[in-house]
Amino acid sequence: MQPRFDLAQQFRHLNLQGNFLLANAWDIAGARIFEETGFAAIGTTSGGIAYSHGYCDAELIDRDDMLRHIAAIAGAVNVPVTADIEAGYGASAPAVADTILRVIEAGAVGINIEDNSHGTMPSPLFDIPEQSARIRAAREAADQADLPLWINARIDTYLLGLGDETESRLAMTVARANAYLAAGADMVFVPALTDISLVKRLRALLHGPLNLMAMPGAPSAAELFAAGANRVSLGVCPMLAAMGTIREIAIEARSRGTWQTMQRSFYGFAEAEALFSARGN
Amino acid sequence: MQPRFDLAQQFRHLNLQGNFLLANAWDIAGARIFEETGFAAIGTTSGGIAYSHGYCDAELIDRDDMLRHIAAIAGAVNVPVTADIEAGYGASAPAVADTILRVIEAGAVGINIEDNSHGTMPSPLFDIPEQSARIRAAREAADQADLPLWINARIDTYLLGLGDETESRLAMTVARANAYLAAGADMVFVPALTDISLVKRLRALLHGPLNLMAMPGAPSAAELFAAGANRVSLGVCPMLAAMGTIREIAIEARSRGTWQTMQRSFYGFAEAEALFSARGN
Repeated sequence: MQPRFDLAQQFRHLNLQGNFLLANAWDIAGARIFEETGFAAIGTTSGGIAYSHGYCDAELIDRDDMLRHIAAIAGAVNVPVTADIEAGYGASAPAVADTILRVIEAGAVGINIEDNSHGTMPSPLFDIPEQSARIRAAREAADQADLPLWINARIDTYLLGLGDETESRLAMTVARANAYLAAGADMVFVPALTDISLVKRLRALLHGPLNLMAMPGAPSAAELFAAGANRVSLGVCPMLAAMGTIREIAIEARSRGTWQTMQRSFYGFAEAEALFSARGN
Repeated sequence: MQPRFDLAQQFRHLNLQGNFLLANAWDIAGARIFEETGFAAIGTTSGGIAYSHGYCDAELIDRDDMLRHIAAIAGAVNVPVTADIEAGYGASAPAVADTILRVIEAGAVGINIEDNSHGTMPSPLFDIPEQSARIRAAREAADQADLPLWINARIDTYLLGLGDETESRLAMTVARANAYLAAGADMVFVPALTDISLVKRLRALLHGPLNLMAMPGAPSAAELFAAGANRVSLGVCPMLAAMGTIREIAIEARSRGTWQTMQRSFYGFAEAEALFSARGN
C-alpha cells in the first residue's frame, strides 16, 4: 500500500480532474475485480456491506463491524479507497469526529457522509446547521490526523423524494449543498438525481464539485459528466445486480434444474485463483 | 431458529430422500435469497467465503474466521445449514474433532470434509487410512455432541484430475468413497464429475449416497439425479457467477459508461430492504 498521504492526494486529484468514475465494493472479491478492470479508485458501499451481512441500509450495522470491512477493502487494493460511513455513526458532531479518526486509521482517504438521520430526528434529514456542524467536525478530525481527506457530503433529498418534485426539492438541495461545502465538504453527492435538465440547473447553482450515481435507466456516464457531474459512482448497484444474478440462478435451478444463468457471466475457477494469488492477504 | 436436533433430522431426511438440490452461500444476502426462492437447505461454500475475503480456495482462511461466517449464515436462515469445512482445519484427527465441535456450536447440522491435503502432504490427497481416521474423529465428535450430523466426504480425484482419466481415476474414487463411508461418512461428494456414464458406473460400485456438483456445462439436475446422484449442490458456482457479473458491469462501465449489465438482473432497492427487514439480525 502506498503511503496514506500520497493516496489522499491522488484521490483528491481524481475528484478535481473530473470525468471520474468510481466503483463501490462490499467485499474483497469486488474490490479486486474493480481494481483489475482499471478503476483508479474504489469506494465502499454501506448498502452493499449491510445487505451482505443481512441488515437493511439504515446505519443498523455496528460501527466497529463497518470499520473492519472498510479496513479489509482498503488493505486489499493499491488504489485509493473512500469509505461510505452513512451518517457518521454518532448522535453528535464529536462522535462523528471520532468515526473519522477511525476511518482514517482503517486506511480510507475519502468519505461519504449523508444527511439522512435514519429516524433519529423528527425530520428524515438532519437540519442544515446540525449537518454542517457534523461536516465541520469531520474536517477538523481529518486536519488533526494531517490527512487531506476528500469529504463528499451526500444529500438525500432526491433519494427520499422530499418536497415537491421540481422547485422545492431542487431549492432544498442547493441550500444544503452550498452550506455543506462552506462547512468543509469538498464535493456534494445527490443520489437518485438523474434528470439531465435538473442536473444542469443544480450545477449552475452549486459552489463546488458534484457527484451523481449510476443506476439502471440512468443516463450514461458521458451524459452525466456533460451535464455537470464531476464524479459518477456505481453505489450499491453492482451489489444489487449480483443479488439479482443469484436470485436468477436460484429460480432457474429450482424450476428447471439447469445452469444457464450461472454460465452467462462465469468467472473461471483458474481466473479466480489467479485474482487472489496475485497478492498475499 | 428451530432446535438443532430437529434441523439435523430434517437435513438427514432431505439427503436420504434424494433429488435434493442444495445451494451454497458465502454471505447472508445469498443465504436469504436461496431461502426465499425455496431451497430446503443451504450449504456454505468455503471457496465463496475465501474469495469474498481475498483468499485462494485452499484452507488459507483462519479457522475462527471461517467459523464466524458459518455461524452468521446458520443464524440468518430457518432452514438447515451444512458447513463446508475444507479438510477440517487441522493437521491431525483430534484437531478435526475439535473443528467439528465448533462447527456444531456455530449452528451447522451437516459438514463437507475433503481429502485434499492442500500441500500439507507429499501427495495432493490424504491417504485413505489417514482421511478415514479424520472422518471417524468427525463422527465421534458429533456423537459426543449428541447430534446426527450429516457427514459428506468430499473426494478430490476428479477435481484435481488425478490418475488417468477413466479406469484408475474411477477406481481411486471408489476405493476412497467406500472407505470413507465405512469410517462414518453418510454420503460422498465427487465435484467435477459430470460425465453421465461415469456417474452410473460409480453409482453401481458405491456403498452409500452420492453428491455431485452443478456447474456451467454440466448435465441438468434431472439428468444427474437419474444417473444416480442423491444430492446436487451448486458449490462455489453462484459466487463465480456473481464475480463474473461484477466484472462485466465493471468492463461495461469503464469502456462505454453505460449500465446494461447492471440492469439485466437487478434486485430492486425496495425488494432488498424487504428481504432484510423481514427478519431481525
